[in-house]
Amino acid sequence: MNAADFSAFCPAPKRAEVIEVCPRDGFQNVKAFIPTATKIAILDDLAEAGFKTIEVTSFVSPKAIPQMADAAEVLTEFRRKHVGIEAVALVPNVKGAEKAIANGAHTLNFVLSASESHNRENTRRTVDESLTELAEVCHLTGASHVHASVATAFTCPFEGDVPKDAVIKLVDKIIALGCKGVSLADTIGTASPRKVYGTLRAVKERFPQARVVLHLHDTQGMALANIMTAMSLGYNIFDAAAGGLGGCPFAPGAAGNVATEDLLNFLTALGVETDVDAGKVLNAAMKLPKLTGVPLCSHMAALTMCKTGA
Amino acid sequence: MNAADFSAFCPAPKRAEVIEVCPRDGFQNVKAFIPTATKIAILDDLAEAGFKTIEVTSFVSPKAIPQMADAAEVLTEFRRKHVGIEAVALVPNVKGAEKAIANGAHTLNFVLSASESHNRENTRRTVDESLTELAEVCHLTGASHVHASVATAFTCPFEGDVPKDAVIKLVDKIIALGCKGVSLADTIGTASPRKVYGTLRAVKERFPQARVVLHLHDTQGMALANIMTAMSLGYNIFDAAAGGLGGCPFAPGAAGNVATEDLLNFLTALGVETDVDAGKVLNAAMKLPKLTGVPLCSHMAALTMCKTGA
Repeated sequence: MNAADFSAFCPAPKRAEVIEVCPRDGFQNVKAFIPTATKIAILDDLAEAGFKTIEVTSFVSPKAIPQMADAAEVLTEFRRKHVGIEAVALVPNVKGAEKAIANGAHTLNFVLSASESHNRENTRRTVDESLTELAEVCHLTGASHVHASVATAFTCPFEGDVPKDAVIKLVDKIIALGCKGVSLADTIGTASPRKVYGTLRAVKERFPQARVVLHLHDTQGMALANIMTAMSLGYNIFDAAAGGLGGCPFAPGAAGNVATEDLLNFLTALGVETDVDAGKVLNAAMKLPKLTGVPLCSHMAALTMCKTGA
Repeated sequence: MNAADFSAFCPAPKRAEVIEVCPRDGFQNVKAFIPTATKIAILDDLAEAGFKTIEVTSFVSPKAIPQMADAAEVLTEFRRKHVGIEAVALVPNVKGAEKAIANGAHTLNFVLSASESHNRENTRRTVDESLTELAEVCHLTGASHVHASVATAFTCPFEGDVPKDAVIKLVDKIIALGCKGVSLADTIGTASPRKVYGTLRAVKERFPQARVVLHLHDTQGMALANIMTAMSLGYNIFDAAAGGLGGCPFAPGAAGNVATEDLLNFLTALGVETDVDAGKVLNAAMKLPKLTGVPLCSHMAALTMCKTGA
């Protein structure tokens, strides 16, 4: 098989960057509290796999998401143990940002939504109010430490289709604030390659130099097809969660993120290199059911369990 | 979003044909015998969904695959009840073909492999011996009633990568026999879009007019990405199994077929029409765990169960 053939269809990048988000997006959807030491042990496994960036935790209301009540301890311990890995903390507001800064996050991932309904459910603010808070956060810590995540960038559980113009308008404001990058999230995993292509092509045309991360849930099993579509447009930075854990507590029906081990296997199969050791991620993922009490949603883990009889 | 944008990347066909194979490929991997009446009830549900072609059963050694011991009864009853739907029976040899013909199969799906090792495991013959039997089967019933399935058309569980030239060579012989069509199967679900693209482009160049069906397992979660890749080359006929059931009894580690309901959802999202009612397939799939005792491997079923609390 001639690899050049395939690149005529999908000119995939030579390298991709994978950001591990299981400790934040995965854990926040686990109902039973995962002991802090367990969280740290899982982070140790993931750090070992070679990620340059890990979303370690989130500073959110412990009433809304009790699982993240130990964010300060987890982040502090991660930073102490894993010097050299960019430690990201998700924050939905100034209050969370202050705590994340106080606990040494390298990067704040400020979350807001492209759709008003989801932004209200997720942050109890209008999108404009979230943008005002984002500006304050940029002022607090310097915009170069702030990344913004646009939830519901393709579809919204409450509003359905999200027009690409709404995304462009929001990304425009985010970039004007000087943020270091922006994530576009398929929060509920209902975007198709057609939808992804339309929005991502427009974003690439408008912001060719921006650091754009894709955060895709796999509710409909289309995450890898969406990632391939994105790569054909030159995108090469992807969030993923070991074991396919995740979801959105305020987005009914959302399945987990694309499993990191499935994404790494896919990238390898397409000849795209990363810094991450897929075998180590798979091993870390295989431990998660015992450690977190939730089942995996991972093709590579299922295949391994089937082959080994585990 | 402008659909024309997406077609610049993936010129998907306007229509696709989906062939339901759960009653054969799905059931053959269920260890506990599914009562004949249950099989027929599931076939009734699937027939109701609008498939033009269903792979109803297989005529194989009941010692090797006891689940298919009632093939004659199932096929006879299906034909009696569902006039107008093309009833396909898989056969691995002349003996099976004779039984399938005697019981009124419209089409015999003769299976052989592109790799010697898998052909031997699956049929206890060399590929040449299988080709000789295929010729006999064509002679028995008329080649226009014979479809050939090429297993391990991309990768083999025993030999690894299968060169596209081996596939071309085999398809050449199949078409020379006058068969009505040929399936290319990713039997163990380990083909990547890159591999699929390479083989399918070569097949399309060599046999632009042939009726080529793709039969893709979803072991690595790449089935939909593979189907999108195939559609970009003009392929538009796909096997799929309700509930994602399936595997290969003689291919260790293989997961099920792409779930029909996931494929239909994907095609709809890409603007590709079919004759099949996705809702009816989903309903049929949701009944399968209770009826067959095996869990589903289906994103759309999981999403539905999550939303309905089932």
